[in-house]
Amino acid sequence: MSAPLPPVVILVRPQLGENIGKTARAMGNFGLRELRLVAPRDGWPNPAAGPAAAGADRLLDEARLFDTVEEAISDLTGVLAATVRPRHLVKKVLDPQTAVDWLDATMRAGDGPAGVMFGPERSGLDNDETALADAILTIPVDPAFASLNLAQAVLVLAYEWRKRILGGELPPRLRSAERLPAPRGDYLGLFAQLEQALDARGHFPSSGRKPVQIRALRSLLLNARFSAQEIRTLRGVIKTLARPVRAQCEGNDQKT
Amino acid sequence: MSAPLPPVVILVRPQLGENIGKTARAMGNFGLRELRLVAPRDGWPNPAAGPAAAGADRLLDEARLFDTVEEAISDLTGVLAATVRPRHLVKKVLDPQTAVDWLDATMRAGDGPAGVMFGPERSGLDNDETALADAILTIPVDPAFASLNLAQAVLVLAYEWRKRILGGELPPRLRSAERLPAPRGDYLGLFAQLEQALDARGHFPSSGRKPVQIRALRSLLLNARFSAQEIRTLRGVIKTLARPVRAQCEGNDQKT
Repeated sequence: MSAPLPPVVILVRPQLGENIGKTARAMGNFGLRELRLVAPRDGWPNPAAGPAAAGADRLLDEARLFDTVEEAISDLTGVLAATVRPRHLVKKVLDPQTAVDWLDATMRAGDGPAGVMFGPERSGLDNDETALADAILTIPVDPAFASLNLAQAVLVLAYEWRKRILGGELPPRLRSAERLPAPRGDYLGLFAQLEQALDARGHFPSSGRKPVQIRALRSLLLNARFSAQEIRTLRGVIKTLARPVRAQCEGNDQKT
Repeated sequence: MSAPLPPVVILVRPQLGENIGKTARAMGNFGLRELRLVAPRDGWPNPAAGPAAAGADRLLDEARLFDTVEEAISDLTGVLAATVRPRHLVKKVLDPQTAVDWLDATMRAGDGPAGVMFGPERSGLDNDETALADAILTIPVDPAFASLNLAQAVLVLAYEWRKRILGGELPPRLRSAERLPAPRGDYLGLFAQLEQALDARGHFPSSGRKPVQIRALRSLLLNARFSAQEIRTLRGVIKTLARPVRAQCEGNDQKT
């Protein structure tokens, strides 16, 4: 199965150039590539978009400009409208994760890209525009605080898309470092060193309890599943701690 | 099971007031409530934060200020560092979805909040700060375009948190409208009307083929699983189409 095409992002009548730039950046962060603009309020290109794009200039350079929503979506095999469902419009509503599943399935079944329309900052998509979509994408914001910025909405879509591409796994370079437990021999060396140091300091006063205390200590250390490197570090710490304090051995140190 | 506490967001040495405001907005959008600031570069409060918060002023008003990371996290039962794992630091790395699972489990098991530290815009968390965390939160951005803005990183965390709270379901007010298929009687009325209209226009020329064509048409309509309202709409459309065109009946119309 080949890597799926990323969905197209269609900004319908966007108002601020800065938001177009931020949208491009959010797309770039998560691997979306194709931006379409329908009748941007302040024309196109817009000098305010560049700085906000923070390196996503190529997306802006390659952005395609359309006069109408109909022209912008005519080659798409599937279209979602990012909005809250208008009261009297009967349409399926998808959360972002389900939306990327739908977009991927639609692109695999058809022979062209699919995309998501986002409306103007202030008003959102109008009902005629929404009616052109196959389904609605709604981002589940807190109802008490629902004003999601345009670029933030695109970011959530793009993030879910990338999660899907990665199959829910972080890529190898980002994963946890392998932390293999040390071979048992390393533990045995650690035990011997530690127990000897403790013995030297009189840690086990009652010789009858000593085996029990040692078993508890060994279990505790084994449970931690230290790596070989961590055991080397611990052995260095014990070595330092076991060293006779300076006052006791000044005579030795200055023997020359 | 009670609703889990949202995680605390800790901005460590944030540089721009505007980004603190945007962080508050992203938190508010998805229901996070507690913001902590460690040694913001330009002091606190910062007049640039308010406008960017777009309504999340309460989060800013209630933000707590600390001099050091240690003070800011001392009451937390669990802490994540939002960063990419430093090369020589052995720590677990969590993607955002796994991170919210971890935060929730940690808060349920302990008796205090858990949180996530985000570093300064330019440099990110330093290694000493990262070493104070239980694990690392990494957002899987496109490696070719990895500069995720501070507020965008917080947004991804907050979005995943809210998804977890909602249990992967859109809240009822955001879901698809119930679209119950119409009772079969509505379909029968539609069939009768449509077939009569088609008959009147001579749609079925060969009477031998008529039953086959009608069955195909009925199947097609039933497959669409129209609602009662949709069938009413369709019947209105058919009624209009079936009306004799004006030219044919002018004589009748002007009979007076």
